[in-house]
Amino acid sequence: MSDATSVPEGWTEVAGKLHRELTFADFSEAFGFMARVALAAEKADHHPDWSNSWNTVTIDLKSHDVDAITDRDRALATEINLLA
Amino acid sequence: MSDATSVPEGWTEVAGKLHRELTFADFSEAFGFMARVALAAEKADHHPDWSNSWNTVTIDLKSHDVDAITDRDRALATEINLLA
Amino acid sequence: MSDATSVPEGWTEVAGKLHRELTFADFSEAFGFMARVALAAEKADHHPDWSNSWNTVTIDLKSHDVDAITDRDRALATEINLLA
Amino acid sequence: MSDATSVPEGWTEVAGKLHRELTFADFSEAFGFMARVALAAEKADHHPDWSNSWNTVTIDLKSHDVDAITDRDRALATEINLLA
Repeated sequence: MSDATSVPEGWTEVAGKLHRELTFADFSEAFGFMARVALAAEKADHHPDWSNSWNTVTIDLKSHDVDAITDRDRALATEINLLA
Repeated sequence: MSDATSVPEGWTEVAGKLHRELTFADFSEAFGFMARVALAAEKADHHPDWSNSWNTVTIDLKSHDVDAITDRDRALATEINLLA
Repeated sequence: MSDATSVPEGWTEVAGKLHRELTFADFSEAFGFMARVALAAEKADHHPDWSNSWNTVTIDLKSHDVDAITDRDRALATEINLLA
Repeated sequence: MSDATSVPEGWTEVAGKLHRELTFADFSEAFGFMARVALAAEKADHHPDWSNSWNTVTIDLKSHDVDAITDRDRALATEINLLA
């Protein structure tokens, strides 16, 4: 069960997903961040739904197998916070 | 002016953008492709609006400065086709 | 103990490491491959000693903790072969 | 002509190349940096000879066409300094 206290700092719960938008200096900084998120996601075998437009990266996390936010999402969100 | 013949193969015009969805074997193959698109975009100084969900990559191209599809979009779309 | 049959196809044993050199069409193709190797390495928590010069990528694998080629190296070599 | 004052800060001239070694917290941080260097190199159409071993990245810059250090190398070195 997810409640307000279980949403990692910087994230909100939107449409049943953990959601965060990040802004960087430019595309290079945004993509360098994305490369690191990709490594973290592949290591966790848990991947984001995410989009990029030049210096912005928008990330949504949900456990598709159970169609809900789980500890795997909270763990990846916390990991992403360390990279941001 | 953009007409049907000017839309690169594999792309459609959706909501004033060139649009293409690509599916890969897994996240690794999708992200390897994204890394190459990132290089092409940075080299062209023209960047996509794009999203990824595990093995799928969705790309929209528009020239934001003129709010229209231009030759820069068609050139990047053609370049992306070579990487897909 | 490592013997000839335990060296994955395409690799040689050089100076106590599994060694492979790969050539690609250009830098973009080489770096797309590197991004995928990075994902595989991070997932395995076992990382290569590797270098790149434009369209070439040279990879050496050794388990630094035991200063020898181990199954972790052979597994990563085999995984890299699937990406090449 | 290259002299001491023309070597960007943090770089040394080794064997006719601009040389710099960088250390990061871990592989993820090193590879995020490498992704950004790759973008800068592709944009400049001038690519490094570089290697990575977990948290270290070693970069050598030379203009292969003239077998010397040129302004293209100094420009890329300066750009890389901004990413480090």
